[in-house]
Amino acid sequence: MLAIAAPLAFAEDGYDLWLRYRPVQGEWLEAYRSAASEIVPPRAASPTLEIALSELSRGLGGMLGAAPPIASEPTKDGSLIFGTPQSSPLIARLHLDLDRISPEGYVILSQAYEGHRVTVIAASRDVGVLYGTFQFLRLLQTRQSLQHLALRSAPRVSHRILDHWDNLDRTVERGYAGESIWDWQKLPEYLDPRYTDYARACASVGINGTVLTNVNASAVSLTALYLRKLAALAKVFRPYGLRVYLSARFSAPLEIGGLKTADPLDPAVRAWWRAKADEIYALIPDFGGFLVKANSEGQPGPQDYSRSHADGANMLADAVAPHGGIVMWRAFVYSQDEPDDRAKQAYNEFVPLDGKFRDNVLLQVKNGAIDFQPREPFHPLFGAMPHTPLMLEVQITKEYLGFATHLVYLGPLYEETLRADTYAHGKGSPVAKQIAGMAGVANIGADRDWSGSHFNQANWYVFGRLAWDPALSTRDIAEEWVRMTFSNDPAFVAPVVAMMMSSREAAVDYMTPLGLHHQMARNSHYGPGPWVSGGPRADWTSVYYNRADAQGIGFDRTATGSNAVAQYAPPSPRALPTSSAYLTPCCCGSITCRGTTGCDRDVRYGMSW
Amino acid sequence: MLAIAAPLAFAEDGYDLWLRYRPVQGEWLEAYRSAASEIVPPRAASPTLEIALSELSRGLGGMLGAAPPIASEPTKDGSLIFGTPQSSPLIARLHLDLDRISPEGYVILSQAYEGHRVTVIAASRDVGVLYGTFQFLRLLQTRQSLQHLALRSAPRVSHRILDHWDNLDRTVERGYAGESIWDWQKLPEYLDPRYTDYARACASVGINGTVLTNVNASAVSLTALYLRKLAALAKVFRPYGLRVYLSARFSAPLEIGGLKTADPLDPAVRAWWRAKADEIYALIPDFGGFLVKANSEGQPGPQDYSRSHADGANMLADAVAPHGGIVMWRAFVYSQDEPDDRAKQAYNEFVPLDGKFRDNVLLQVKNGAIDFQPREPFHPLFGAMPHTPLMLEVQITKEYLGFATHLVYLGPLYEETLRADTYAHGKGSPVAKQIAGMAGVANIGADRDWSGSHFNQANWYVFGRLAWDPALSTRDIAEEWVRMTFSNDPAFVAPVVAMMMSSREAAVDYMTPLGLHHQMARNSHYGPGPWVSGGPRADWTSVYYNRADAQGIGFDRTATGSNAVAQYAPPSPRALPTSSAYLTPCCCGSITCRGTTGCDRDVRYGMSW
Repeated sequence: MLAIAAPLAFAEDGYDLWLRYRPVQGEWLEAYRSAASEIVPPRAASPTLEIALSELSRGLGGMLGAAPPIASEPTKDGSLIFGTPQSSPLIARLHLDLDRISPEGYVILSQAYEGHRVTVIAASRDVGVLYGTFQFLRLLQTRQSLQHLALRSAPRVSHRILDHWDNLDRTVERGYAGESIWDWQKLPEYLDPRYTDYARACASVGINGTVLTNVNASAVSLTALYLRKLAALAKVFRPYGLRVYLSARFSAPLEIGGLKTADPLDPAVRAWWRAKADEIYALIPDFGGFLVKANSEGQPGPQDYSRSHADGANMLADAVAPHGGIVMWRAFVYSQDEPDDRAKQAYNEFVPLDGKFRDNVLLQVKNGAIDFQPREPFHPLFGAMPHTPLMLEVQITKEYLGFATHLVYLGPLYEETLRADTYAHGKGSPVAKQIAGMAGVANIGADRDWSGSHFNQANWYVFGRLAWDPALSTRDIAEEWVRMTFSNDPAFVAPVVAMMMSSREAAVDYMTPLGLHHQMARNSHYGPGPWVSGGPRADWTSVYYNRADAQGIGFDRTATGSNAVAQYAPPSPRALPTSSAYLTPCCCGSITCRGTTGCDRDVRYGMSW
Repeated sequence: MLAIAAPLAFAEDGYDLWLRYRPVQGEWLEAYRSAASEIVPPRAASPTLEIALSELSRGLGGMLGAAPPIASEPTKDGSLIFGTPQSSPLIARLHLDLDRISPEGYVILSQAYEGHRVTVIAASRDVGVLYGTFQFLRLLQTRQSLQHLALRSAPRVSHRILDHWDNLDRTVERGYAGESIWDWQKLPEYLDPRYTDYARACASVGINGTVLTNVNASAVSLTALYLRKLAALAKVFRPYGLRVYLSARFSAPLEIGGLKTADPLDPAVRAWWRAKADEIYALIPDFGGFLVKANSEGQPGPQDYSRSHADGANMLADAVAPHGGIVMWRAFVYSQDEPDDRAKQAYNEFVPLDGKFRDNVLLQVKNGAIDFQPREPFHPLFGAMPHTPLMLEVQITKEYLGFATHLVYLGPLYEETLRADTYAHGKGSPVAKQIAGMAGVANIGADRDWSGSHFNQANWYVFGRLAWDPALSTRDIAEEWVRMTFSNDPAFVAPVVAMMMSSREAAVDYMTPLGLHHQMARNSHYGPGPWVSGGPRADWTSVYYNRADAQGIGFDRTATGSNAVAQYAPPSPRALPTSSAYLTPCCCGSITCRGTTGCDRDVRYGMSW
């Protein structure tokens, strides 16, 4: 007989990301209940502070079985006080010296207050309170003590931005998690609850900006119709401290402006962009600014008019400067006419322009000089433009980084880049100190789990956490994420973290075997395709990078070859001896060749080429 | 003070479709509890019967607060017995004469059984039991009495099929609800729970087939790699009575078979398709068959080799016939060289072939001769091919039918077509009697709510219900759906059903004003675009169909014009007097012109052209 009804399986669908707030069990439960016995919100309300309160109630309610009661004053031990000095007289009275931390920072302190042991989450601005709230909840999520807290935290990187390569038709370039979450057709009238959940997730890891549109941009996003849609999203995001940015198509003045040119020195063009910026800021006073891919892979740009990248960037910078906006100008450029290959062109192009950009221009530089390979040496522009603020751009979406379906935790890749020493100002000049911002190409789509798999969510998470503080250990972040997402059971945490930590090296090994990179198939970029040749550019092919023939395999970037290594600060490997233009397979792609039985890797240059 | 935590809003996200099983309140609760006091499952298990039990437990558990206990024999009034005579000795003992209803049918009967009042859900096959289970639950969902039940129901249409226009890269042609739900890359290893939920939803409305791939087909879906993926889906769908079909690209023998021709009379080509069919059926014994769009809009087909549609269809039919498969051959064809426009070509092409198709070929005919306009006269092929089984193809996705965002309930469109009298065998020969199958172009995607909005779900629902029984009232179906999806509150049901029932006419009025159809913009097909002209085919333009000029507007399809009306059975309007080639705006598009103050509509021809 069919005697047992099939159990109703409701699979964990991943929608809640790392903010699951599952019930706490065992000894921790009582400890946390007594350490979070009531909530004392600020007296003055704001949308951001309301979100902080809502998050505390939701998080503590989920983890502790019930949200603590709200109180107007601390009435017992375990009282939880949060706010800014402006919004909370209680916090003002504590004289926490909040001005010493940067505006987005926060403190979480265990304090005595009128005979009670209380916990204070405080910041000088509302958004800092929100960041502190997520950090406080993270302490519980990862089973840390709430006693004797004395945390002070502030972001070390100002611009912590997701770049969505989302097209207006909801396709996503290099997206593997469903359609774009931006449903432009239904905006501005219909606000998908997902927009709020997205902003919340970003705030929980400190991300403070989002470029909503593809760097291969459509001018349509700058039309009045779309700006109204953008304003609706900006309104949802604002209380979460998340500013919106747009990619700007350089030829927009022709395409939607009715002008005959997009020359950045043409007065009509400059006036058009100023008016466009004014139009945007009238709708979105905290609009972040523009991201531009110009004169790269067929995109229009200032060089179409024999102007420099500085001319183009400065024109846009002048348009947004009165409103406090910035321009992120991508350094990922290369020209068909240039004899050097892609590894060298960006440096050649931009170093001479150092000092020629407006203050509100940031040059956005990929982690490596080629294109988001699983391992590349850091980009030679880091440290080479002392008068230009740089953004580090990394890929969170896995274009080359392990298909969409593989577990590849990208924290070690980001960490390797951030910690690579540029020697720009002598030893001890890591990439992390050369940057004013971090941009991550998002892996987010309309899939229920946002990122195509649970493990892909970890890459969104680690990007945000590292952008907040590049000094964090990506192993610690992995553990944090595992605990928040899955379980605090040590028997689970340890092996899963170990899998994550070894996963990027596995992807390196199968995507760039022997250090040979750019060996992927065309189109999908999955591969393998070491035989790929032909097409418009030699340096878009695999054979260009492997140089495999009857005599050997490998690409010589030293002085006897392309001499790309000369773009790095000394001590440089440019004088390293190589016996031929072809290196032996054992160390085919690496700069240093020390043996024939294995690939010695040069940590200084972030390993193989 | 921020005193109140924001309520935790968990919006109804639509994932559960019409199967929500919300708690029953008030007087109905006790009535239903006593009428469903225990469940007596069959003794012999099968996957389908397990699903029926699971669904009963889930549905009754949700609606009544707890699932009724399972019993091996009826022990009290309200016992619910389900199964087939083969699986349940209890049901066998009742001698229900189940052979009189078709294999997919079921009975739901109130009975006395050994002194107890019981309810019996029985069928001759397991899938009938499942259909009956959903119908039984529907009775509760729509607040109908469970007393004195004597329901017998069986589908009037054999093939009730969803056509997914889904590409292998997860884009969906004319899809407005996210990416394709078929994640080919992750198949066959990863079985998204959504596949099960899809099959369950289909079974709940009696849909028994699904064509997984776009009619604009890729031969890749026929490769061994993809057939394994297909087999994994088929295994999920099988216990739900849902068979899988594929679109077949006619040129596949060239593209993946290594042949030099796809000529349907070539022995090597015929052998290739036979071997391919054998390969498919070895993996999927209940594979449904092929859907083919050939020699239409640039697709390859038998005419490329000077063969007829019958030659092409019969070749495929011969390949699948040994396994019980069918071929659905689309009649949506037109040729650039043909002088007649699209309204006439399919009839001209196919009527001469009547009687020349194999028994297992169904000709799949759109509801109207043009292309899924909000209103068209029924297709002249209905009733014109007495020796060929026909499928009626309708669009569920809203390519032309009210954007994706508008409430347009398509039941009235389907009903209008099904009930239109073809006069093929004299008065009383409606389309519904001329068809052996119904195909609906799906509106399903990976959006959380499956269809882009709650109301779009109603079109999936009504398609299935009407395919089961074309005699059902679409108003009744709308009410049923509203009650199951939203609420049984009469103050809610009445106005919402009224909105739904008037919505299609509203779409007709704004998409085909004054009866002028095909006035949409290019590409998106939203519009309006009455000025659209140019391009490769005159009858792909708006101006072709409106013929607007200084003298008038409208298209004359009578004997003085294109004489398309001659393709309909008498009594025909072909002899109707018209004063000029242009009709006056008042009745521009309609066949009959009776006045100048309004468009008299001719119900016989499904209204305007």
